[in-house]
Amino acid sequence: MASLSLTAKEEMVERFLDAAARGDLPQMRILLTHTPSLINQTGYSGWTALMLAARNGHYNVVEALLSHGCDKLPVNSSLQTAYDIAKFWGHSHISNLLAQTDNSCSGVLPELYFSRETLDRQSDKRTDKAWLEAQQSDPNTVYLLFSNVNPMVSRCEEDKSSEVLDKLCRFRYDEVKDLIQKPKTKLIFLGVEKKKPSSSCSQVQEGSWEPPAWFAVGTDEDATELLKRCRENNCFFPESPNRNLLKFSEEEAGIVAHARSVLVWHDRYSFCSTCGSGTSLEEGGHKRRCLNSECRSLKGVHNTCYPRVDPVVIMLVVHPDRNQCLLGRKKSFPVGMFSCLAGFIEPGEAIEDAVRREVEEESGVKVGLVRYICSQPWPMPSNLMIGCLAIATSTNIKVDQNEIEEARWFTRQQIAESLHRGANPALMLPPSQTIAHQLIRYWICKNANL
Amino acid sequence: MASLSLTAKEEMVERFLDAAARGDLPQMRILLTHTPSLINQTGYSGWTALMLAARNGHYNVVEALLSHGCDKLPVNSSLQTAYDIAKFWGHSHISNLLAQTDNSCSGVLPELYFSRETLDRQSDKRTDKAWLEAQQSDPNTVYLLFSNVNPMVSRCEEDKSSEVLDKLCRFRYDEVKDLIQKPKTKLIFLGVEKKKPSSSCSQVQEGSWEPPAWFAVGTDEDATELLKRCRENNCFFPESPNRNLLKFSEEEAGIVAHARSVLVWHDRYSFCSTCGSGTSLEEGGHKRRCLNSECRSLKGVHNTCYPRVDPVVIMLVVHPDRNQCLLGRKKSFPVGMFSCLAGFIEPGEAIEDAVRREVEEESGVKVGLVRYICSQPWPMPSNLMIGCLAIATSTNIKVDQNEIEEARWFTRQQIAESLHRGANPALMLPPSQTIAHQLIRYWICKNANL
Repeated sequence: MASLSLTAKEEMVERFLDAAARGDLPQMRILLTHTPSLINQTGYSGWTALMLAARNGHYNVVEALLSHGCDKLPVNSSLQTAYDIAKFWGHSHISNLLAQTDNSCSGVLPELYFSRETLDRQSDKRTDKAWLEAQQSDPNTVYLLFSNVNPMVSRCEEDKSSEVLDKLCRFRYDEVKDLIQKPKTKLIFLGVEKKKPSSSCSQVQEGSWEPPAWFAVGTDEDATELLKRCRENNCFFPESPNRNLLKFSEEEAGIVAHARSVLVWHDRYSFCSTCGSGTSLEEGGHKRRCLNSECRSLKGVHNTCYPRVDPVVIMLVVHPDRNQCLLGRKKSFPVGMFSCLAGFIEPGEAIEDAVRREVEEESGVKVGLVRYICSQPWPMPSNLMIGCLAIATSTNIKVDQNEIEEARWFTRQQIAESLHRGANPALMLPPSQTIAHQLIRYWICKNANL
Repeated sequence: MASLSLTAKEEMVERFLDAAARGDLPQMRILLTHTPSLINQTGYSGWTALMLAARNGHYNVVEALLSHGCDKLPVNSSLQTAYDIAKFWGHSHISNLLAQTDNSCSGVLPELYFSRETLDRQSDKRTDKAWLEAQQSDPNTVYLLFSNVNPMVSRCEEDKSSEVLDKLCRFRYDEVKDLIQKPKTKLIFLGVEKKKPSSSCSQVQEGSWEPPAWFAVGTDEDATELLKRCRENNCFFPESPNRNLLKFSEEEAGIVAHARSVLVWHDRYSFCSTCGSGTSLEEGGHKRRCLNSECRSLKGVHNTCYPRVDPVVIMLVVHPDRNQCLLGRKKSFPVGMFSCLAGFIEPGEAIEDAVRREVEEESGVKVGLVRYICSQPWPMPSNLMIGCLAIATSTNIKVDQNEIEEARWFTRQQIAESLHRGANPALMLPPSQTIAHQLIRYWICKNANL
């Protein structure tokens, strides 16, 4: 069955790429509607639909692919982007179109994983106890179950995309009401849905529809017992929670980032750090209050009472020759993997200074200009990754062995080969869900096309 | 005496501005060497030296003033910048020079207060106990005293600049060795000096010189007792600690930001938040370790053990017509003061999404494009201010009264008048040390000159 389905998929990719090469936009549209993931698929020698359309001068196809969010960054086995191909074959109207949108950061960078805000947080409702209670018992309210800080998921092998996806198991009030009454359970109000539901929610009547509220339920109850609540058999708690956090759809990843960060905070901060007393949950699980009525933390506003978010700088350091970049590896990385340098921002430090300090501490390389590119929440446990490009003003590497095992300058060509899947087995880059990967792609793309 | 000294100062400003108008660079250099603060002084109708040089076509003077870090943003009473004046009078080589450096963010934004890294933090030394102990007893080591979290200062009325400055009181080992032995004292290693000392440190021999280490000493001992340690009589602990934090020189402000943020963290986080036990200081005061050997926080790396830095978004929201900006005021603000909207980044949130959420929550205005401009550490108590420009996509204001008292669109003209000191008493902007002020100036300048 598996090999048969693979062949069918290969055939579909073939038809899609052929339509792009011929400029058959109607045919491409039909295939894309059925299988959106076709858009970035590669065929012979790593050619994408965008490259084939660019090669043959089909301006309308290139335009349509871009408007569908097609990825412009891949290179084929000759290390050419679609832009390079259009330019080589003299289709200047197409190369201009591809270069033009490359000038803005938002045109180059895809939405970052963990960043999609599917829910409206409605933080003003966190203090509205009556509203929260009404939402809790509403039959449309969605509950997610976390065993300690790990979400219960089911696996969808048959998803339209080529990747295996995990899906959050969703529960209704009746299925969890006993659990949320227990004193040790943590209940976190995550927000309400932004969009109208799809037609699959047939029990909901149009017109009177109120967007459902979502809650995360954190418990340390026995996982086997928790799994008995499921209607389906393929539910489970992942054994490698951190790695599995990268297997959600974009929609669910954002929800998981919010829920897990808050639950980890509760897990680590259940005692008052100012006086050592116990604390209780408030404000829809977004505040902890000290139970000692004499505690200083009850007077005024104190950060001890609110979830912690740790700002981290992560930077791609570019060689003064602009043709190499600096990557490092920790001992814990898989063999051959290198990534951007990174570190926590210290008290009393601006972003740009933290970049300079961390790079010099870890690698001995001095940095001048620093430019912010993008940010990403990272719920392991609750970091805010602040992604920058940094231009080195020195090149000698002297690694701090406590921090990283090795740091090295890599050429543009080595990086491009590695981004082109499998073409450089000696250098493995972090997965596309990470801001490190996106910073590296951004650098390759900006420089290749400008 | 005061009025006499004021007249002398006025006369000096007059001579400086006159030299700029005549293009007399040698005379200007002499005056600037003696009194660097002359560079941004204004005379009749708010004209600066830069404006006068731009008016009369003195290219070499404009160039010299810019290279001395002269401020290009001020407007005169006709709301013209130096750029506007050069352009109006047809000195295109000067207007080009002024516009050119305006294109980069770093050319427009001054160094932000609290951001200067005077010391090299040398974080790798924090775990080197022998080195730290040797530094502690070194006669050149500098100690700063904090009563609770407030630094001991002296006031310098006679400083070369026109502003009253507070200076950190500096102590030597012999003067504080009893204090730092006490178990409740917090000793924070801040780093070592980056530069060679000035000639005033006559006891130091050239050649063998090692840059002195700096420590902050945090104690809750009686302030009067602490003041007895001073050789001079004008030492004190400010009564309005937060407001007084804005009165340091740029060099010292960065040191205060680091020291105070760490000391506030110790003050609020002296108990283990994971198990409620006591904790002890480690790593030069940059780590706390739980005293309960069974505690989970001792296994692996946990943020509970490290100083907390809270990332905050602060944004100037620009009207869709690009000619107005949105400012709000809290009840606690002085009469007439408005500032940028701001708020804490939540768990699972990217910078850009936090900007959109906070603006909509506080003012009801929807935001599209968000662009990062600059960041600033803010030690009240330990925030990282992340400054952005945000383009509104809606204009109706609906204020959340819990957060702010009022929000309003202000025209470019209203803002420019307010930046031009005193010209708009109905609108007071936050002081120049704040990132809010700098974001507002950045917007005014970028739009006027581009």
